[in-house]
Amino acid sequence: MAIVGVSSEGGYGFANGMLLACRAMGFAGEILPVNPKGGTFAGQTIFHSLEEIPGDIDFAVIAVPAPAVPEALEACRRKGAAGAEVLTAGFGETGTPEGRVLEQQIREVAARGIRVVGPNCFGIYCPASGLTLLPGAGLSRETGPVGFLSQSGGMSIDLAHLGGWMGLRFSKVISFGNGADLREAELLRYLADDPETGVIAMYVEGVADGSDFFQAIREAALRKPVVVLKGGLSEAGGRAVVGHTASMGGSRAIWSGVLRQANATRVESLEELAQACLAFSHLPARVFRGISAVGGGGALGAAAGDAAEACGITLPAFSPDLRDRIEAILPRPGSSAANPIDVANPFVPPAVLGQVLRLAAEDTRVGLQVLISLLYHYKSQARAVGVAVADITPCTELAETVAAAAADTGKPVVMVLPDLMRGPEDLDLAGMMAGAREEFTGRGVPVFGAIGEALRAIGHVSAYYERRLPREES
Amino acid sequence: MAIVGVSSEGGYGFANGMLLACRAMGFAGEILPVNPKGGTFAGQTIFHSLEEIPGDIDFAVIAVPAPAVPEALEACRRKGAAGAEVLTAGFGETGTPEGRVLEQQIREVAARGIRVVGPNCFGIYCPASGLTLLPGAGLSRETGPVGFLSQSGGMSIDLAHLGGWMGLRFSKVISFGNGADLREAELLRYLADDPETGVIAMYVEGVADGSDFFQAIREAALRKPVVVLKGGLSEAGGRAVVGHTASMGGSRAIWSGVLRQANATRVESLEELAQACLAFSHLPARVFRGISAVGGGGALGAAAGDAAEACGITLPAFSPDLRDRIEAILPRPGSSAANPIDVANPFVPPAVLGQVLRLAAEDTRVGLQVLISLLYHYKSQARAVGVAVADITPCTELAETVAAAAADTGKPVVMVLPDLMRGPEDLDLAGMMAGAREEFTGRGVPVFGAIGEALRAIGHVSAYYERRLPREES
Repeated sequence: MAIVGVSSEGGYGFANGMLLACRAMGFAGEILPVNPKGGTFAGQTIFHSLEEIPGDIDFAVIAVPAPAVPEALEACRRKGAAGAEVLTAGFGETGTPEGRVLEQQIREVAARGIRVVGPNCFGIYCPASGLTLLPGAGLSRETGPVGFLSQSGGMSIDLAHLGGWMGLRFSKVISFGNGADLREAELLRYLADDPETGVIAMYVEGVADGSDFFQAIREAALRKPVVVLKGGLSEAGGRAVVGHTASMGGSRAIWSGVLRQANATRVESLEELAQACLAFSHLPARVFRGISAVGGGGALGAAAGDAAEACGITLPAFSPDLRDRIEAILPRPGSSAANPIDVANPFVPPAVLGQVLRLAAEDTRVGLQVLISLLYHYKSQARAVGVAVADITPCTELAETVAAAAADTGKPVVMVLPDLMRGPEDLDLAGMMAGAREEFTGRGVPVFGAIGEALRAIGHVSAYYERRLPREES
Repeated sequence: MAIVGVSSEGGYGFANGMLLACRAMGFAGEILPVNPKGGTFAGQTIFHSLEEIPGDIDFAVIAVPAPAVPEALEACRRKGAAGAEVLTAGFGETGTPEGRVLEQQIREVAARGIRVVGPNCFGIYCPASGLTLLPGAGLSRETGPVGFLSQSGGMSIDLAHLGGWMGLRFSKVISFGNGADLREAELLRYLADDPETGVIAMYVEGVADGSDFFQAIREAALRKPVVVLKGGLSEAGGRAVVGHTASMGGSRAIWSGVLRQANATRVESLEELAQACLAFSHLPARVFRGISAVGGGGALGAAAGDAAEACGITLPAFSPDLRDRIEAILPRPGSSAANPIDVANPFVPPAVLGQVLRLAAEDTRVGLQVLISLLYHYKSQARAVGVAVADITPCTELAETVAAAAADTGKPVVMVLPDLMRGPEDLDLAGMMAGAREEFTGRGVPVFGAIGEALRAIGHVSAYYERRLPREES
């Protein structure tokens, strides 16, 4: 892999940053820096030209000034590169004639036989090879089912980081910027065919060919979930995307109709995008219409019931017999098990919560369970007995118990761990919460930060499979 | 203040916990523990009875078993207490005849001349005196404008903790549980009259007298913002509140109409409640219809524009002249200043951002500015130069600059600081982010964690004053 534009003068330019980031990631191939001025950077000799590199290259990262990009791209093509990513900005998005001409020149080189991602992008993150996004040193090397197509470089790196600790693992993240060559429709078809990708996420600002895009997303969504965040649907948002990726914002009504007809999942924010991907990648391909909700505190259950109804999910009332059997193992007074189940306080032992989950799973109308745990309360216990909060909070035991209950009952459990104390004096809790999340996600149990966010994500999964499954049967 | 039910055998019962919590808070008055068995706890002699206490008492915390509560309450009344809070559960919410009888007995004692908060509650948090909620050691002693009435103890302590680091400061938090005596309508009138309270927040599960409540909330909302989270509007949520505080859930349509007619602000979650209170307590009493949005990355501006439109807020397009003057001080390429303003990257110096805010404020249609800053990106810079992220991130300078721009232009600035990296290896960022939030909120600049959350909260403020101001004029 050639990186064109590495400077021996150091600094934090795109090319130098990319070289360091890929090395930090342990990039699986050879990294070949190129700059007409030669020299060395970070212990590597810089080739004066692509021609100087012995043998062919497979791929190139191009980060030279915009006017020099078409020539550099052509040199990569002649050197045998099948593809390249152009990080440089200053093309169609500037709105200037020069920018548009340069972008057209990229397209012309591409047409001669090299596929291009960009320009004006952060490139490709591929955990399997260690290729990473522009400022992406430190991303995970673990591969997972989420493929993300992003017209915005910022969104690509933001979701990669946000998803990292939430438990998302990526097959590929592709920041395609202005999309001079490769863009939404073709990349959608690629991810739809990609066996590594189980869920497609997408941030789109505008499409080049509406009917081609509709066909591509419709076909993709027949095969796997496609979650779409569309930026620029308001007047001001539309103004932003023109200057950002030279896109047309489009109409809210049209986009809403297109995504609904394609059975794509529409989300409204980066956070919702990440949460939907978490649910799609951690939950089985099922429709969840009935659930149970378990938490220590009556208002939690009320919130879960209210949020569920807004997402088309119900909490069936348990039979008196089941209710009695659950209440028999819970602290009294303060508990109730009508579904939602109020376990009365945040300190109910994991073994008891595991029993509650197993009992509630006996109701055949329950297809999934939500367990809400306010772990921050352990801080007052820790203070009272004078130990560290991480030592007193039974995260591992709770995660093991929950994962076992989910496995044995065949009904997934979704955790809600609100992170309600985040001040400067609560960094012990930040550490405990981060560790707790890993305990759960490492065992395949998705963790959300708020009740409404969990239910909304579960609702997306249900809605997708409800609309998709009948088509497959017919 | 008597605490009735303190046990010399220690343990973490309600009364012992409350005594320790109030001492940890530096409670301003004398704490007098009571238990028929006597003994000592935490170095204090326990009175065998209320009668044994020399002189009168002002207030009592009652945490004895439910059957003993009416008698203890009567003893407090005879001892001169003007009020008491009953933490004990096991009354009307159990649905049993015994529970209902005991609750009626509380009402009868109250009618003889002592006001009661509870039973089945976490009590009162009053920062000025150091009285705190049941598990509330460690809450702030700073008084502020937010008064919170909560039927749920869990919600009261959750909002007190969540609000603490978000920058909310409370006048009083009152967890009133079953509300045997004092409850929603009377407490609303109290907070409406309370000069310390500028914003009333409310978590309600059910009301005792619908038309009295409507009158009380309508009158309160004529004087100050009232933000309401109603729990139990779904079938399952309604089931939860019956067992929780013996409430009737009620109909979504009726509640929606009542709150709209009262000009109360309706929210859907604890998080939205906290965010709305943050906006109401930090922003001036104005209608914000036009705003600017500033961020490093085009997708941020698109998101702000889209979220604003959904909240009835517009981002007016700047004149070509203003646009040019802003773009002249921004990095090129990658920036644009049509409003939203894309400052191109997350590392633009605070002084430049301050200039951008001052320029954008020249547009008379802009009444408020939103500045989005992805501070987590400083971590890669810190790594590259080998320093701690807290040392390289210009939080203090940015907060000073933003606060000065807001003060000088008379147009408030709202910060959005997404906390996108929260894994176990990012605790340095958790510390930096917590410190950054304090820098801003300490200067009166509210901080939100997500673009959509900030705009929604601003929208609540606008909507409230838009509907209220005309009435005052008429």
